[in-house]
Amino acid sequence: MHNDLKTQNLESLSIVGVGLLGGSVGLAFRAAGGTAERVGVGRRRSSITRAVEVGAIDRGTLSYRSGVGRADLVIVATPLGHFKTVFRQLADHLPDGAVVTDVGSTKASVMEWAAELLPPTVRFVGSHPMAGSETAGVDFARADLFHRAQCFIVPSDRADEDAVALVEGFWRKLGMRTRQVTPDQHDRIVAQISHLPHVVASALMEVAVVGESLDSAATGFADTTRVASGSPGMWADILMTNRRGVCDAVDELVERLLSIRKWLDAADTDQILQFLERSQKARDAWVQRRYAEREIEP
Amino acid sequence: MHNDLKTQNLESLSIVGVGLLGGSVGLAFRAAGGTAERVGVGRRRSSITRAVEVGAIDRGTLSYRSGVGRADLVIVATPLGHFKTVFRQLADHLPDGAVVTDVGSTKASVMEWAAELLPPTVRFVGSHPMAGSETAGVDFARADLFHRAQCFIVPSDRADEDAVALVEGFWRKLGMRTRQVTPDQHDRIVAQISHLPHVVASALMEVAVVGESLDSAATGFADTTRVASGSPGMWADILMTNRRGVCDAVDELVERLLSIRKWLDAADTDQILQFLERSQKARDAWVQRRYAEREIEP
Repeated sequence: MHNDLKTQNLESLSIVGVGLLGGSVGLAFRAAGGTAERVGVGRRRSSITRAVEVGAIDRGTLSYRSGVGRADLVIVATPLGHFKTVFRQLADHLPDGAVVTDVGSTKASVMEWAAELLPPTVRFVGSHPMAGSETAGVDFARADLFHRAQCFIVPSDRADEDAVALVEGFWRKLGMRTRQVTPDQHDRIVAQISHLPHVVASALMEVAVVGESLDSAATGFADTTRVASGSPGMWADILMTNRRGVCDAVDELVERLLSIRKWLDAADTDQILQFLERSQKARDAWVQRRYAEREIEP
Repeated sequence: MHNDLKTQNLESLSIVGVGLLGGSVGLAFRAAGGTAERVGVGRRRSSITRAVEVGAIDRGTLSYRSGVGRADLVIVATPLGHFKTVFRQLADHLPDGAVVTDVGSTKASVMEWAAELLPPTVRFVGSHPMAGSETAGVDFARADLFHRAQCFIVPSDRADEDAVALVEGFWRKLGMRTRQVTPDQHDRIVAQISHLPHVVASALMEVAVVGESLDSAATGFADTTRVASGSPGMWADILMTNRRGVCDAVDELVERLLSIRKWLDAADTDQILQFLERSQKARDAWVQRRYAEREIEP
């Protein structure tokens, strides 16, 4: 029955974890005309109730049996730290052939957990929608959260073409651009554009705190360190599940910083100027491309 | 005649370089009720004309003799790379006892140039108003650019108390908070909160370009790298005049990054979590203080 499943044929969509991301999936799916019943699975009665109130799900439950027992597609949208527990619960209650995806910020570890903990009859396709915010909770969920942003798609060995097409079609229906990558490619890319910037922003804060220079800091410093205000627990989970990717990215940055330091030490103005010019041109070109694709402030 | 000069007694204010900062000084001084004649000195007729048109100065000239020959207070607001040339011109044309200050982003080099190139009769007080933007040119000048921001004050050996009070009073009149520091203190502080973040933002861009990960980058990356869009020429000048300060700050950051790398390598979740918690708490507390002082986006 599942072989030719298309987004428009979905009858039952389960969302495990109805916070900012899970709630936004529910809102965006309905806004895009999705008619499947949206079932929320949560750990607290209060958040399930709230998710129904804001229209993010049609019904909510604390029970996996009731929540995913007839699911065509399951979206795991809990914090990364709960994934293993969630996968074990799903293994006990999913129907054969169900397609499972997630919204986790790292992929190599998630793919391993899925292979280990989900039964072979379940078709797992990893996802990472590059959307979110520093806020948390279903009260901040928005139907347009995913609009025009990018979603990584990471097929597992157990996912056939139909399952991959279903998951890819699902995120496209929600307004995203999709990009298929391997788990290692994914983790290397996000280390460079997200995990390393987070580590660096947090380390810059610490340098300023220890140096007692913080009270003179202004707008530029506020921009550069903004991501350091993200949830420490969530980010510890992310960094710890992408240790290799982050370490490699740290090494690449440190190597560059030491080159710059050498040029400064040698008063090599040309090298410093060329470095700053390369980065400025690259950033301006990227902002222009991005600005054309999606409305962000330049 | 100059011994008890106060901001309210200024008769002639000269602004050398009428771009974003110099133009904003002119606008802000008039908006704050300053009545002294505002004389602009520039290198191009067109920018002088434009500065008069937007009301940033009362009259403009390409000649130092006409521009600063009767000045009570001179503000040097050119790019750092022109300071030595400007100081030589000022030396030839300033009246005895004139007070000179600047808006340069580094201070140890500037103080050396002033001591070397300005005559002993001129009272130099270094300034660094922490205001500006990625835009350039007098068309972007604003009367409120300095409002509630901080200005570093760096007295020279040749500046008596009256000269320091005049310069400090001037920036306060424009709405700034002032903070007196030594040249070395200044350069260490701005290395940590401004120059290092600039170097790091530019280096993060390069890691992403070389790793071909840029096309997946999102809002967090845009924030963290925003300052890398600043003028390469201006920033090369800044970094090259604060080589010691920037090298020390790079060393402090690299040391921290290598600690973090070690914790990741050892899977030391506790250390990673504590590090992220310290930085998040420090940033949130800083944003709250800053938000209370000055309206910026949290």
